[in-house]
Amino acid sequence: MEGNHHTSRVWKGESIRSPTGNQCQHGCWFFCWVGRRTRVPFTGFFKVKTPLEVYPLLEKFPPLGAEEIALDACLHRILAEDIVSPIDLPPFNRSTVDGYAVKAKDTFGASESNPTLLNLMGEVLMGASTDLVVSEGEAVAVPTGGSIPDGADAVMMVEFSEQVDERTIQVKKTLSPLENVIERGEDVRKGENVLPPGHRIRPQDMGAMAAFGKSRVLVHRKPKVSIVSSGDEIVDIEEEPRLGEIRDVNHYSLSALVEMAGGIPLFMGIARDTMENMRSLCKKGLQASDMLIISGGSSVGTLDYTTDVIKSLSDSEIMVHGVSLRPGKPTIIGRTSTKPVVGLPGHPVSAMVVFDLFMKPIIWRLAGHVAPVWPLGKRVSAILTRNVSSPPGREDYIRVRAEEKEGEVMAHPILGKSGSISTMVRANGLIKIDIDSEGLEEGTRVEVLLF
Amino acid sequence: MEGNHHTSRVWKGESIRSPTGNQCQHGCWFFCWVGRRTRVPFTGFFKVKTPLEVYPLLEKFPPLGAEEIALDACLHRILAEDIVSPIDLPPFNRSTVDGYAVKAKDTFGASESNPTLLNLMGEVLMGASTDLVVSEGEAVAVPTGGSIPDGADAVMMVEFSEQVDERTIQVKKTLSPLENVIERGEDVRKGENVLPPGHRIRPQDMGAMAAFGKSRVLVHRKPKVSIVSSGDEIVDIEEEPRLGEIRDVNHYSLSALVEMAGGIPLFMGIARDTMENMRSLCKKGLQASDMLIISGGSSVGTLDYTTDVIKSLSDSEIMVHGVSLRPGKPTIIGRTSTKPVVGLPGHPVSAMVVFDLFMKPIIWRLAGHVAPVWPLGKRVSAILTRNVSSPPGREDYIRVRAEEKEGEVMAHPILGKSGSISTMVRANGLIKIDIDSEGLEEGTRVEVLLF
Repeated sequence: MEGNHHTSRVWKGESIRSPTGNQCQHGCWFFCWVGRRTRVPFTGFFKVKTPLEVYPLLEKFPPLGAEEIALDACLHRILAEDIVSPIDLPPFNRSTVDGYAVKAKDTFGASESNPTLLNLMGEVLMGASTDLVVSEGEAVAVPTGGSIPDGADAVMMVEFSEQVDERTIQVKKTLSPLENVIERGEDVRKGENVLPPGHRIRPQDMGAMAAFGKSRVLVHRKPKVSIVSSGDEIVDIEEEPRLGEIRDVNHYSLSALVEMAGGIPLFMGIARDTMENMRSLCKKGLQASDMLIISGGSSVGTLDYTTDVIKSLSDSEIMVHGVSLRPGKPTIIGRTSTKPVVGLPGHPVSAMVVFDLFMKPIIWRLAGHVAPVWPLGKRVSAILTRNVSSPPGREDYIRVRAEEKEGEVMAHPILGKSGSISTMVRANGLIKIDIDSEGLEEGTRVEVLLF
Repeated sequence: MEGNHHTSRVWKGESIRSPTGNQCQHGCWFFCWVGRRTRVPFTGFFKVKTPLEVYPLLEKFPPLGAEEIALDACLHRILAEDIVSPIDLPPFNRSTVDGYAVKAKDTFGASESNPTLLNLMGEVLMGASTDLVVSEGEAVAVPTGGSIPDGADAVMMVEFSEQVDERTIQVKKTLSPLENVIERGEDVRKGENVLPPGHRIRPQDMGAMAAFGKSRVLVHRKPKVSIVSSGDEIVDIEEEPRLGEIRDVNHYSLSALVEMAGGIPLFMGIARDTMENMRSLCKKGLQASDMLIISGGSSVGTLDYTTDVIKSLSDSEIMVHGVSLRPGKPTIIGRTSTKPVVGLPGHPVSAMVVFDLFMKPIIWRLAGHVAPVWPLGKRVSAILTRNVSSPPGREDYIRVRAEEKEGEVMAHPILGKSGSISTMVRANGLIKIDIDSEGLEEGTRVEVLLF
């Protein structure tokens, strides 16, 4: 059955197939032909699961171990430790303005028309501490961010004061205690739990860790995800495809999706539709990585090879064999030991939808990250601009282009076959039609799941 | 004025300042003290601009040149060329199902109760072309994704057919022409413009380019952005801060923001509050990069140094000196030749807000990327959970934590000083209070700008 180029079997005259050699037990040639490739009936999969049945199964994969990395390398990594502040922040009472550190009660009653005189005792320099102590009737100049001398409990902004002579200032405003002061520990208290394990590190989190002097951070390992493209029709992009062949699209789109999900993609190559070739590439992939994705060709045969490959691995299990989902029904999720091994449909659109629905959560899970698949900000509310239909009994995902128009977001459905990469290029999101719905009408408010 | 640790000037007895040596022309000590550091009056900046006045100025920075990179490295890079398909996609008529390539008109009238017989002429193998031609009354087996033989214009799904003998099938459904066929060029036509310059490359775009055999892509150079932290109170995170000192937070949060904006951060070090030290680090930064960010200490003095540094550079201009914005008023935007040189306020919160408002658009501009600062999906509609006030005459950005609750998003304002890093850690977005508004009431629908 190898797909030699420019080969086709013809049953005219002598080149007819031998019934015994080519017919299956059912006695029908076609079932045998497809049967050898799929071993599933054409009407669908056995035990197809709903998406809601699939999600809890993904929780079974345990997070990878941790590693310590430098703070400046930890953007978007997943914390594997509690971040507890070892210090008070700020570590001293700081002024939030340029002005004079005073006792607030010395300013009570002071106003523009009734200023109070205070003795100017000196200044605090930026970045320095001071031996000065503010007593009743005294003031010390402090810059923004400067340390406030003992005895003072507020800072008079320079705008509300006037220097009378070298040692005297007038203050023209009544201050409350702690006005223009950020107190020691007001931002973060020593021993405070600031970030939990499982948190995805953002720029401000790095800033907070910098403030604590945390130069090394314990994070989960990035999941290495190996990708095997399969299908007799698939050729490398550097090759000129002959008639019947197409270039390997999914290698590139899936690698990029793995990267975006926080994994490290490792491309293993294109497997021909033979069990030996598939198995050797998959074993190589599993040795090098924490997860294996087999991207099917368009051929149904690769589905079966994926199942067979998983079954042939030690301590393996097929967890999902088909999902009531469109596009994306022929999805296989299995494992060998604790490593996920998944088979994605070959159509580029199906592969991307299934990736977002199930592969991203698996990669996040391995990475120790717990978050909804489409967190806040990856969804937008929009108005559907035309009717879309869907048979009940499966979840349908419709590609849309969400665009803003006069303050409202409009979702334009992009129709096209699931093999069409251009529909994904034009789209920027998906809308879901629920499993029990028969479709959505033009004008309905929908939630767009953004890519 | 260097901030030696544990130093403070005291005007008690002999250690008093000499009036000539320390007083400025205004005869006031404080104005002199701050004056030397800022040279701006305390009441504010001259010619403060509104954010709306600032945005058009950012358009002046031209995009950087282009470079050719490998397709698998181009995720999130910005296209510097038109992507035009050199081929039809698919390159041949493909079947979308497993079945039999037929002439649609041969199936007219066929149904479950009234099947039509066709002669089975052979099969097309996956990834191969065929010499078979489908004539009237004939059928050829094709797999999903297989090439459809000449003469056929539709594919009968195997579910609606039955094999009678080796050379005969029954078909039980009437097909329309092109049913279950994706025509050559139906996805993308040869010569079609698929992606424009300035587009940020997504996984599906990489898939499309893979399909075209485009293994090298012309993209804009990633902007290199050098960062100088400044302030006498700032110490490296590995150091143990003494009283009056704090660790360098902005180095880490700004580097991460530069990375997220698509730039390459280059940290130049911490500049002391002296003109010479600032200038030498800034010049080093500008030599190595396409843009320079000077992160101010909390001290107002660094603002002035930033202005002076920019003025001392060749072909330089101060474009923005203060923005009617909170937090973030003391923002400086200038240039030397076509390179942006910007001064950010030292407070971590202010620095991050100003980064998102003005620095990200500049970096995008250099990178050739044209998009709104907060594109779709970086904004979410929410209900404000408490009153927030704001003086008219400036744009206020309030940190919020947006959280979903029973299908609605609630925006909880997080109050705290702009020096407080913990408020940014708790927040996941900002809400804007317009320049002419005095605040927003609890229960108002607001747009949260997500970090």
